[in-house]
Amino acid sequence: MKDAADAAAIAIVSEDVCKEVVSRADAFEAVEKVFAAMARGDAYNFPVIREAIGHADALYGFKSGFDRAGLVLGLKSGGYWPGNAARGLTNHQSTVFLFDPDTGRLRALVGGNHLTALRTAAASAVSIAHLARRDAKVLGMVGAGHQAQFQLRAAAEQRRFERVVAWNYHPDMLPKLGAVAAEIGLPFEAVERERLCAEADVIITIGSSTEPQIMADWVKPGTHLACMGTDTRGKQEVDPALLARATVFTDEVAQSITIGEAQHAVAQGLIGEDAVTPLGRVINGDHPGRTGDDEITLFDGTGVGLQDLAAAAVAMARAVESGKAQTLTL
Amino acid sequence: MKDAADAAAIAIVSEDVCKEVVSRADAFEAVEKVFAAMARGDAYNFPVIREAIGHADALYGFKSGFDRAGLVLGLKSGGYWPGNAARGLTNHQSTVFLFDPDTGRLRALVGGNHLTALRTAAASAVSIAHLARRDAKVLGMVGAGHQAQFQLRAAAEQRRFERVVAWNYHPDMLPKLGAVAAEIGLPFEAVERERLCAEADVIITIGSSTEPQIMADWVKPGTHLACMGTDTRGKQEVDPALLARATVFTDEVAQSITIGEAQHAVAQGLIGEDAVTPLGRVINGDHPGRTGDDEITLFDGTGVGLQDLAAAAVAMARAVESGKAQTLTL
Repeated sequence: MKDAADAAAIAIVSEDVCKEVVSRADAFEAVEKVFAAMARGDAYNFPVIREAIGHADALYGFKSGFDRAGLVLGLKSGGYWPGNAARGLTNHQSTVFLFDPDTGRLRALVGGNHLTALRTAAASAVSIAHLARRDAKVLGMVGAGHQAQFQLRAAAEQRRFERVVAWNYHPDMLPKLGAVAAEIGLPFEAVERERLCAEADVIITIGSSTEPQIMADWVKPGTHLACMGTDTRGKQEVDPALLARATVFTDEVAQSITIGEAQHAVAQGLIGEDAVTPLGRVINGDHPGRTGDDEITLFDGTGVGLQDLAAAAVAMARAVESGKAQTLTL
Repeated sequence: MKDAADAAAIAIVSEDVCKEVVSRADAFEAVEKVFAAMARGDAYNFPVIREAIGHADALYGFKSGFDRAGLVLGLKSGGYWPGNAARGLTNHQSTVFLFDPDTGRLRALVGGNHLTALRTAAASAVSIAHLARRDAKVLGMVGAGHQAQFQLRAAAEQRRFERVVAWNYHPDMLPKLGAVAAEIGLPFEAVERERLCAEADVIITIGSSTEPQIMADWVKPGTHLACMGTDTRGKQEVDPALLARATVFTDEVAQSITIGEAQHAVAQGLIGEDAVTPLGRVINGDHPGRTGDDEITLFDGTGVGLQDLAAAAVAMARAVESGKAQTLTL
C-alpha cells in the first residue's frame, strides 16, 4: 500500500470556528434529521463508553455512531474534569472525530464544547417544535447554568413566547439567565417551582439533580416538558408519576429507560419501555405526537452521539466551504 | 470559562514521522511496561467497541484505556475497510488520540497504521523475551503477510536465531518474508507445517484463519508459541488441545478467553479461565513464566488498546522533542 495515497487532508475546525459557522438553525436541522434517521433505522448509536478513570476525579468516555443516510461516521470523545474550573478551563471537554465511511480515514477534528451545548439545546427545541401546543405563551426554565442559556435561546425560537418564568436551586445564578431573556426581548421572572408549573406552557429542566424538582400534580394539562438534565443512572429531575401521566418521547429509547429521566418510572413499574416513543417517529409522521390540547407531552433528552456527529458534520462542511478550516495530513 | 485558556497545543504525529521516531526497541519497551502496569492493576482497557457498520463492508470501532502509571489516556479508532486496497489505500485504518489525564484536553493525534504493526510485533517479541528458551535457534513463521514481516524483525532480536522456517496458506507470499529474513541475515526455508513444528523452537502464528493450522501433537517440547492472529470470535490458528498442553499467557485474560486463541479451549472445557496468566505477571516477577526446558509456553496476543496508546505516547514524546510534530490548537 502507498502511504502517500493514504494521506488525505483532514479538516481541523476549532471551537472559535464552530461558534462562527454553526447557527442554532443549523443545529436544529441537523438534530431533527438525525432523530428522523434513527427512527427509520438509518442511523444508530454504538454502545457508550463511560469510565471513572480513577484520576483527577474524571469521568471519561466516548459516544459514537453511524448515520447511513447522512454518511456521517465518528465519535465524540470527552468527559468531565471537575478540577478544570479552578485552572480556568472548561470542566466538560469534548472533541469530535469524523471518519470517511467509504475508507475509514480520519476526515475531521472538530472542537466539541460549543457544539455539545448547541446540539443539546437543539434537541429540546426540536421536541418543542413537534410537541408543544401551538399557542404556548409561557416558557418555564428549571435550571439556570451555562447550558440553560443555550436552551432558552433555542426554545424561544420555536413558539411565540411572551415571558419566561425560572427557578434554580442556587437562586444567585438566575440573573445571568434573565440577561439572556432580556437580550431576546422576553420578560423574565424568578418564581417558586409550583407557580412555575402553574404558569408555564413549556418547561425545560436542565439541572444536575438526583431527586425530583417537579411534582406530577403541579403540572397543568397541555404542558410540554423537555427534561434535558438526566443522562446518568441516579440523576432525576421530575416526579416519576409525571411520566405515567404524560405521553413520553425520547431521543433513544434504550438510553431513556436506563440513564434518562424514564429510568425511575420504568424501574418503579409506572410505565413500560413501550410507553416511550422515539421523537423521530413524530418527525417522520409515523406517530401523531400531541393529540389534544390537554395532553401532557414529555421529551426525555438523554443525548446521543449521533447528535454530536450531525452537528460536527455541519461544522466541517461550513468551515471547509468558507475557508475557515485548517487542514493537515497524517 | 475562557476559551483561550482551553486552546492548548495539540501535537500531530504523521505516519511518516512515526516511522522515523519510533524504533522496535521503543515499541518493545512501551509494550513491556504497559503489560506490567496492566498486571499490577495500574492500567486498564475500557470495553472495546466494534461494529459492522453496514456500509462498505467495514468493521469500525475503538480500543481505549488509561495507564495511571504512565499517565496515558486515549483511544485508537479505526477499522477494516476491505475495499480500500482496490483504491490504493490501506485496508486497516487506525488513528490514535491521546488526552491529558489531568484536564481531558486533546493532546495528540497520532497516525496509527505503522504503530499498530509495531506494537503487535512488540507483543510477541516481549513474550519471546520472557518465555522462550534461552537457547532457541529456529524461528517458525506461520503466516507471511504484511504483519508477519514486522513479527519476524522483532522476534529475531530476542534470541540468537540461526534460521527461519515458514509456511503460509498462499505459498506465493513466502518470498517476501524470505527477503526480510535475508535482510537480517537469517537463512529462510519454506516448509510444510508438520516439519515447521518439528524444527522450530519459537513459533509465531500471524494469519487470519478460522481453523487450526497447527495440531497439538506436532509441537515439540520446549517450544514457545506466540499466537498473534486471533482477535475476533471465530478466528483460530492452533488446535485447542495445544492450549491444554501448554502454559498459557496473554495480554488480557478477558480478551483471551472471548476473542483470543483461548476462546476455543475454554469453550470446549479444555482449560479454565484461571489457566490463562497475564504476561505482565511474569514481567513483574509475580509468576515464574517458563519453569523447564520441556515446557511448552503459548502467548495468546489479542491486542489491547493500551498497547496502541503506549506506542503512540512514545511517538508523541519523540516527535515533540525532535521538532517533528506539527502543532495546532482547537
